Amino acid sequence: MSTSPAVNRRVTLANRPSGMPELSDFALVELPIEAPAEGSVTIAVEVLSIDAFIRTVMDERAFHGAAEIGGPLPALGVGRIMHSTVDSLQIGDAVFAPLGSQTVAELPAEFVRKLDERVAPSTAYLGGLGFATGVTAYIGMMEVAGVQHGDTVVVSAAAGAVGSLAGQLARIAGAGRVIGVAGGPEKCAWLVDEVGFDVAIDYRGGDLDGQLRAAAPDGVNVFFDNVGGEILDAVLEQIAFGARIVICGGISHYLDMGNVVGPRNYLKLAERCARMSGFAVNFYAERVGEAEAALAGWLAEGRLVMHEQHEHGIENFGHAVRTLLSGGNRGKLLLDLR
Amino acid sequence: MSTSPAVNRRVTLANRPSGMPELSDFALVELPIEAPAEGSVTIAVEVLSIDAFIRTVMDERAFHGAAEIGGPLPALGVGRIMHSTVDSLQIGDAVFAPLGSQTVAELPAEFVRKLDERVAPSTAYLGGLGFATGVTAYIGMMEVAGVQHGDTVVVSAAAGAVGSLAGQLARIAGAGRVIGVAGGPEKCAWLVDEVGFDVAIDYRGGDLDGQLRAAAPDGVNVFFDNVGGEILDAVLEQIAFGARIVICGGISHYLDMGNVVGPRNYLKLAERCARMSGFAVNFYAERVGEAEAALAGWLAEGRLVMHEQHEHGIENFGHAVRTLLSGGNRGKLLLDLR
Repeated sequence: MSTSPAVNRRVTLANRPSGMPELSDFALVELPIEAPAEGSVTIAVEVLSIDAFIRTVMDERAFHGAAEIGGPLPALGVGRIMHSTVDSLQIGDAVFAPLGSQTVAELPAEFVRKLDERVAPSTAYLGGLGFATGVTAYIGMMEVAGVQHGDTVVVSAAAGAVGSLAGQLARIAGAGRVIGVAGGPEKCAWLVDEVGFDVAIDYRGGDLDGQLRAAAPDGVNVFFDNVGGEILDAVLEQIAFGARIVICGGISHYLDMGNVVGPRNYLKLAERCARMSGFAVNFYAERVGEAEAALAGWLAEGRLVMHEQHEHGIENFGHAVRTLLSGGNRGKLLLDLR
Repeated sequence: MSTSPAVNRRVTLANRPSGMPELSDFALVELPIEAPAEGSVTIAVEVLSIDAFIRTVMDERAFHGAAEIGGPLPALGVGRIMHSTVDSLQIGDAVFAPLGSQTVAELPAEFVRKLDERVAPSTAYLGGLGFATGVTAYIGMMEVAGVQHGDTVVVSAAAGAVGSLAGQLARIAGAGRVIGVAGGPEKCAWLVDEVGFDVAIDYRGGDLDGQLRAAAPDGVNVFFDNVGGEILDAVLEQIAFGARIVICGGISHYLDMGNVVGPRNYLKLAERCARMSGFAVNFYAERVGEAEAALAGWLAEGRLVMHEQHEHGIENFGHAVRTLLSGGNRGKLLLDLR
């Protein structure tokens, strides 16, 4: 365990970006560490999860709640208790919490979850077991899509954290064919060679419709969408009768939420008796225990693999967000402060 | 019963329209009536159902199958057997069939359904009991939307045949509030005063978002959509958690299917754990019996009312289609050839 930090280094929102955030939209400030309020704990942040919602809350109107100018950005993370005012959390305990873009966080104890590092290393609680990652992929694929044995499944942003897990979960559920959509030949090769997708389609490679038709000649039964835009329209064109589309996210829109282009092929839903279901994992709290137990089992058996990509240093928070938004990661993108 | 016609007067597709069909896109031809082929019957057409799909099949690419230049346009209708080659259908029997835009139709007997005029007048089989009307409204509202007691329900094209029934079915199912969207104050008054909607919103009256917010302050649980476009986006903005949107049609797009604008607010589905389900009634054949029995009961009890608007004469087929597409009808638009 490293020594306790003497100061809180916090990344704040300096400007609301339009489009891709610039590094100058983030500022780094140093704050003194004070004793926690009664009922709260102080946490030394070890690893932050870099997720797409960080971009959406940078906008003035954001459905997850807008971040304030001059305030920290929200981020889930794992860390270790530095000071505690409650019996249930002791100095040195590994914890998961909405820690924010900083090296030290003070939070009410009820927002802090103690982790069992014997079950999995703490970063697994941001990845394969993570609420915004593993649990999201599980709820989306198993519950909302209701993936069935033999289904032809397409996952967009397949090389991302949620997407790469969603594809593996489809395989575990007995899908007949698991197709990933990702940007660039390296990611596509990685999806097939390392992650176990049957086919990977490079959306930057042109003729998305043709590639998809070749990969799913009998149509798509399940589409797990993290992207929106032209990819959603291309899949709608190829859906099978009774298809289930899951709207997990729409990263192609997050840089410009004021100008979302809707799926022009949405009438295919009527033509093919298909449905498009959105979900937000925070509304499935009662399913988290079941999801985690299943995910932990598959991770332990090696049937599910969460690739992690570590960036380093709180000063690189903005850089890491830009990396995520430009598709520069494979698997789970983490900002490691250890 | 009128005397048998001596000639078949048929309306054919003269040109593929772009946008609203012109009267010159339709032609009227006269054809001799020949004896029916073995296994077929000849039917004197009495009343044709004017439905929005007639416009979609005028395009070269149409998902219901494109009509041919010089050929008849498809239309469901009721009529009476003139000549028969099968024992199950006798001269004078009232029948329902895909008769097409003509005064006399020859069809294989298996496409022809004999009607029981003791249950309902034959035009009811195009309206309240009709496959493309009553059965469509029933499947969409009761099955696909799964309307529940207390739901706030919105129906677009509410003054149309399907919409006016869908709203009444929501009421029968115990919806808490039934809101219709229609064009113009006359239709809106009619919906509230005659059809039993709680509120009617005039989409031509401006501030659709504000009108909808006032009508459904706690959000929309069910939206039965026949229109698409700005109405779909306005309702998406106001959906409640767990809302069910049914895509029954998209008449705002039918004049220009090459330039459909998708719902830019579709990410609300994720934010609010809502779903958008499309359906086409032809895939629910096994439910038609149940739907018809329920509809017949409610029609007989007067709990369900199908307003009919009759236009006259096969030469006015094109005019009737234009009337439908410009929203010139209240309730079921029929072309009466009697």
